[in-house]
Amino acid sequence: MPNIKSAVALLSGGMDSATLLYYLANQGCRVYPLSVHYGQRHARELAAAAAICEQLGVPHTVYDLSNIKPLLRGSSQTDDVAVPEGHYEDPVMRLTVVPNRNMILLAVASAMAIGNGSRTVAYAAHAGDHAVYPDCRPEFVEALQVALHLCHYDRGVDLYAPFLGKTKAQIASLGATLKVPYELTYSCYAGRPLHCGLCGTCCERRLCFEEAGLHDPVDYECPLTETKAKMGYSV
Amino acid sequence: MPNIKSAVALLSGGMDSATLLYYLANQGCRVYPLSVHYGQRHARELAAAAAICEQLGVPHTVYDLSNIKPLLRGSSQTDDVAVPEGHYEDPVMRLTVVPNRNMILLAVASAMAIGNGSRTVAYAAHAGDHAVYPDCRPEFVEALQVALHLCHYDRGVDLYAPFLGKTKAQIASLGATLKVPYELTYSCYAGRPLHCGLCGTCCERRLCFEEAGLHDPVDYECPLTETKAKMGYSV
Repeated sequence: MPNIKSAVALLSGGMDSATLLYYLANQGCRVYPLSVHYGQRHARELAAAAAICEQLGVPHTVYDLSNIKPLLRGSSQTDDVAVPEGHYEDPVMRLTVVPNRNMILLAVASAMAIGNGSRTVAYAAHAGDHAVYPDCRPEFVEALQVALHLCHYDRGVDLYAPFLGKTKAQIASLGATLKVPYELTYSCYAGRPLHCGLCGTCCERRLCFEEAGLHDPVDYECPLTETKAKMGYSV
Repeated sequence: MPNIKSAVALLSGGMDSATLLYYLANQGCRVYPLSVHYGQRHARELAAAAAICEQLGVPHTVYDLSNIKPLLRGSSQTDDVAVPEGHYEDPVMRLTVVPNRNMILLAVASAMAIGNGSRTVAYAAHAGDHAVYPDCRPEFVEALQVALHLCHYDRGVDLYAPFLGKTKAQIASLGATLKVPYELTYSCYAGRPLHCGLCGTCCERRLCFEEAGLHDPVDYECPLTETKAKMGYSV
């Protein structure tokens, strides 16, 4: 890891951004976790983000951008359309894309990183995101990095996205060594108290722990066999 | 002008974005003017934006992002520090820079342009902005364009910034031919009912009309000679 003294770390409350937060803190980086409420149908992941920050002992900033909702149409994350179930890389998962969400989040995080002088934003996009989310792809991150270097005096803002080339299983393995409290994280798109086990992120998450040979400490509504069947595994 | 059927047009309420709005509408483009309240000290420019849209007969969208204010430190536009007076290109004008403001505005406008299907964002950054505002420079706009083409499926979002190479005097001349209602625009950083005539934008605006040989229809608190003296002209 490059020597990063301080960074604004986007924290959704899911396992990837929680792992990145711990990864940074573990190396002595002063972290400023930032969660953004952008009109998600459920605020459970924000509560998870708060719990993770409390556990780590770092102040949590929540930015309420939820009045953007009327501007963003066509996403199951913000509109009243059904959450699609099944494989994370299925084209139907495009329904979960909030238009240009990540650029908005990264732009706001960068403003904060200029304001507090850290000049670095940490972003946990990973290899499994690429197929469905255009704004998680390496080429998007690289292009935005160029713009962020030009957005302010001096060198602008550095974007640190060390998981771009990592699978979610690799992230889980890293997190296990860092003792990330995965029991506090929340990943489900359905937003009920237990993880549904059938939406795109639940499927991806559950299988990644399996692949890494690790126990996923969150509770699911359905047995693992159902998740695997949804993913097309013969069980 | 390229054939743009519809576009989200960022509208501050100042003369540049008003001119761009009229320029687009004049060529048959369906415009969606978007103004963003981002914690400016004064909301007078938003009222100007609304009046311009009413005059043109187009619906005005205002997005309230004002709770971002605590995240943005170090700008006279959002903090309680004095508005600097004098030449627009003076280094002291850096105090008026809101960190990464334009990327945030452009990211939100792009989300709206994906949501409504127009897929184009119009942005009135001009040549006079470059010296002080990093996020008005052509290299920033070009870099962000690359990222915006990658932020969503298909070709993402087009950024249309036809004034990048134009001076403010050239914009005023264009606006005169388009009959832009400059009497409705508001440009002053001080935010009082009349334009102060001494802040950076007042100085720039007043002199650009003078340079273009046009009458600026807004009222100023001080005579033109004071503005010119502030700009270092011998009067």
